[in-house]
Amino acid sequence: MPAVSLRTCVMATRVAIGFDFGTESVRVVVVTTADGRVLGQAAKLYAHGVIDRFLPTDAASALPADYALQHPQDWLDSAAAACGEAMRASGVQVEDVAGIGVDFTSCTVLPCWADGTPLCMTEQFARTPLAWPKLWKHHAAKEETAMINRIAAARREPWLDRYGGAIGLEWFFPKVLETLRRAPEVYAAADVWIEAGDWFVWQLTTGLFPASGLGGMVRSTCQAGYKAMWNKQTGYPSREFFGALHPAMSDVVAKKLYGSHKAPGELAGKLSASAAALLGLDAGTPVSAATIDAHAGVPGAGVGGADTMVLVMGTSSCHMINSAAERLAPGIAGVVDGGILAGYFGYETGQASVGDAFAWFVNTFKLSHQALNDQARLLPPGSNGVMALDWLNGCRTPLMDGRLSGAFIGVTLGTQPAQMYRALMEATAFGLRWIVETLRTAGVPVKQFVASGGLPAKSPLLMQIYADVLNAPIALPESDQSVALGAAIIGCVAAGREGGHDSMQAAIAAMARQRADLVYHPSPAAAAAYEKLYPLYRRLADGQGIVADIMRQL
Amino acid sequence: MPAVSLRTCVMATRVAIGFDFGTESVRVVVVTTADGRVLGQAAKLYAHGVIDRFLPTDAASALPADYALQHPQDWLDSAAAACGEAMRASGVQVEDVAGIGVDFTSCTVLPCWADGTPLCMTEQFARTPLAWPKLWKHHAAKEETAMINRIAAARREPWLDRYGGAIGLEWFFPKVLETLRRAPEVYAAADVWIEAGDWFVWQLTTGLFPASGLGGMVRSTCQAGYKAMWNKQTGYPSREFFGALHPAMSDVVAKKLYGSHKAPGELAGKLSASAAALLGLDAGTPVSAATIDAHAGVPGAGVGGADTMVLVMGTSSCHMINSAAERLAPGIAGVVDGGILAGYFGYETGQASVGDAFAWFVNTFKLSHQALNDQARLLPPGSNGVMALDWLNGCRTPLMDGRLSGAFIGVTLGTQPAQMYRALMEATAFGLRWIVETLRTAGVPVKQFVASGGLPAKSPLLMQIYADVLNAPIALPESDQSVALGAAIIGCVAAGREGGHDSMQAAIAAMARQRADLVYHPSPAAAAAYEKLYPLYRRLADGQGIVADIMRQL
Repeated sequence: MPAVSLRTCVMATRVAIGFDFGTESVRVVVVTTADGRVLGQAAKLYAHGVIDRFLPTDAASALPADYALQHPQDWLDSAAAACGEAMRASGVQVEDVAGIGVDFTSCTVLPCWADGTPLCMTEQFARTPLAWPKLWKHHAAKEETAMINRIAAARREPWLDRYGGAIGLEWFFPKVLETLRRAPEVYAAADVWIEAGDWFVWQLTTGLFPASGLGGMVRSTCQAGYKAMWNKQTGYPSREFFGALHPAMSDVVAKKLYGSHKAPGELAGKLSASAAALLGLDAGTPVSAATIDAHAGVPGAGVGGADTMVLVMGTSSCHMINSAAERLAPGIAGVVDGGILAGYFGYETGQASVGDAFAWFVNTFKLSHQALNDQARLLPPGSNGVMALDWLNGCRTPLMDGRLSGAFIGVTLGTQPAQMYRALMEATAFGLRWIVETLRTAGVPVKQFVASGGLPAKSPLLMQIYADVLNAPIALPESDQSVALGAAIIGCVAAGREGGHDSMQAAIAAMARQRADLVYHPSPAAAAAYEKLYPLYRRLADGQGIVADIMRQL
Repeated sequence: MPAVSLRTCVMATRVAIGFDFGTESVRVVVVTTADGRVLGQAAKLYAHGVIDRFLPTDAASALPADYALQHPQDWLDSAAAACGEAMRASGVQVEDVAGIGVDFTSCTVLPCWADGTPLCMTEQFARTPLAWPKLWKHHAAKEETAMINRIAAARREPWLDRYGGAIGLEWFFPKVLETLRRAPEVYAAADVWIEAGDWFVWQLTTGLFPASGLGGMVRSTCQAGYKAMWNKQTGYPSREFFGALHPAMSDVVAKKLYGSHKAPGELAGKLSASAAALLGLDAGTPVSAATIDAHAGVPGAGVGGADTMVLVMGTSSCHMINSAAERLAPGIAGVVDGGILAGYFGYETGQASVGDAFAWFVNTFKLSHQALNDQARLLPPGSNGVMALDWLNGCRTPLMDGRLSGAFIGVTLGTQPAQMYRALMEATAFGLRWIVETLRTAGVPVKQFVASGGLPAKSPLLMQIYADVLNAPIALPESDQSVALGAAIIGCVAAGREGGHDSMQAAIAAMARQRADLVYHPSPAAAAAYEKLYPLYRRLADGQGIVADIMRQL
């Protein structure tokens, strides 16, 4: 029997677990460390979902427009349920789990006490909306974002150029400043302001609240770098800058941003006993520092080096690329040293409405994606004369301007809905080409493309248009859960020798790939047609031009 | 008994008859000469309607796209049926009819033999599409229109400026040249090319074909002036110009455009015996020279003087105004001495899609005008940030460019259909304001507005928007058949003393009015809002600008 037991141990499949926290649910995957095969997976909705109408504690007071909150207990409960189900489905034993990785929506941020307790779960603040975690798409900090950009520009803050000249509404400090200005008692009571992904890792590694330990707190360089203006060399913005925003904010870094910074794939700590009990895993299992969900898609798509752009295409699109050099480009959401992969400068750019734009068209006019795709496929490049601007939710990269809006031109008495739908698709492709050219002009090589997220599988036509407009092949990740796989990969790497790979690159090479059976190649004829149309799009989209100027005044 | 008979005669109500030939049907009104009261009316569809798929004589050969033909016999048959019904309804006797007036769609044109026989009704040409009357909206002469404009511009033809620098696709000579180039045997066989309104008057006054007399042919100064580049002082374009278009066309005026020119309200002739038999009226009844249907709407709206613009608002819009002076303005469809009212220079301008644009939106997206009006009424000026360009069928006045197209800007993920619908309404109102300002800048005073046509009754919201954008009251004709009433008025005036009025002005003053119970007055708040939006529309609509330039290349 001991021999049998030994044999079982030697033959056992080593796995890593990835926790992928999305907007509505958390997905957990259990994958082999050897080749990234998914042995078990499960997804669980959050009981309270997105809290945007009433607090669970106060059904009488409607939340203001633009509010989007979440409940921290949902994250724990759904993670525990999904982890249990995925582990059971995988058939592996808890001792086979080499490491745990976490990706999370970002910037989702919450104020806590020093013992890890979210302020919204205290008696005092349970009915105070701004004490609750603000989900990434909480959009109520418009004034604060404008203040931060205005003051940073006036002070010529050195970090501003790394974010293309302006920071975003959904980032860390706009949400903190919003709370300070509008609910100062919450700001004052918070010992800690923290990204939700970092909070979850903190819970895993130092013990569940109210037993979390400040000393063991680890923040993700990825989240801090892209959303909180943190930089490996210089840290956060200065005390003087924060003081210029608000006198009470001068010490925000020293007093409320405890913790050390580690990159995704670096060990944040070992699973605490209380967290192990919650998840049904072994205490002591290595846990990686967290990462942003979209960024987990890079390793998950099998991209472990420079110059390949990973498109995460969903309601909006996020594009990530690693490069050997740091270059500043207009409108990039950020360049962060080691922000995606250690050893590279990671660039993030974005388009604010992609799938959302197509869904707007379908929902507003009660049409069908399938029927429109079928009709749009028969149209030539250029949609028979209709051209669109894809800024239905503003323009992120490169213009960084939320006042811009969508447009259609070339509409005639014969225009059919499929022309407008295809024109929207083409507009997002032109917008991406503009981003690629902006990066290349700044000196960031962009040589290959991998498209992940929900959209590629939904619309082969869209992918073909992208290949034609970019005049480049577009590959697809082999895994349809590439983001969760990426989380598992950083968990595996954080485990060091236990994970079986001695570097992120090695783990990616072993655990993730692109599909061999499907690559979208450009059609020479379509690419030539788009080569003529793209300059027209650029003239229409000119941020200094008439159309943009009129949009800003409407 | 003789005394009774005399008394009846003295008391008899004198009437005038108006024939209003539209695209699908002819309407006949019998109105009192004393005050324009409608005693009887009837409308009859044309048996063949618009012939745009197959000739009645050849069900096997599909007509090309852009073709729109009609059957001359339909005009006679429907006119006879409607006239009989209207007369019966009126209760008046044939001897009480003082005069007859005719308005017709324009430019609807046909080739005939010298005896009045339409070529399409001959054995030889019955199956030749280009031998049939080309309806105003027959759009197959695109190449010929471009040729005429190009050659006229190169030769600096002096008449070109009277048409704002370019003539239109729907006019007289493009259709003649199209026939010469594509069916030369039809051109050669035609003794006469004539507007349908003039052909009908010719039939009435000189006898029905094949007994029509060339000697009595009268052409309308209105139709010739607005659609055939004719001018009271200089006549038609020169022999050299037509020769430059096509060698075989040099003598088109001398050989195919017989007849004298008379203004609407001038006597074209007396009703012939054969026409009287057809219509059930008395031979010898005075018949006026014809007029263009839209132009009949000016007297029919009670406008007998200068400086009041009459809007005829339907699928497209046509705007007419009389002025004391001849001024040249860009993009006007024409300025014709006496073209609308003797003694004034008549100006016509146009918008190529108005009701058509709203109908496109409703039909393309399967929505309802009523529901959209109900929702759009609740929106503020500016449609909550959406702005449109109304060029879904090109821009007529002032840019005269069929390559331009419609547009929407300001579209967001929250945009609702009613915003786009209202934006289209506002765009047509801005387009009209641009036309009004173009005329004023050229020195043509525009002081008052009367809106007729089908649209004003359908959408009070649209009329309110027009009043707000123009910042001026908009009156409505009292008669809901103002065009047919206008035809009756010119018939009455052509009758001279028999009609009871000694001038067009006197007849208009007696027979037509504007409604006293409904005038659309501008709301000061809305007018102020549009005052800010209008410059944005003008920048977007700039014919020299980026948007127009891109549209031309799509």
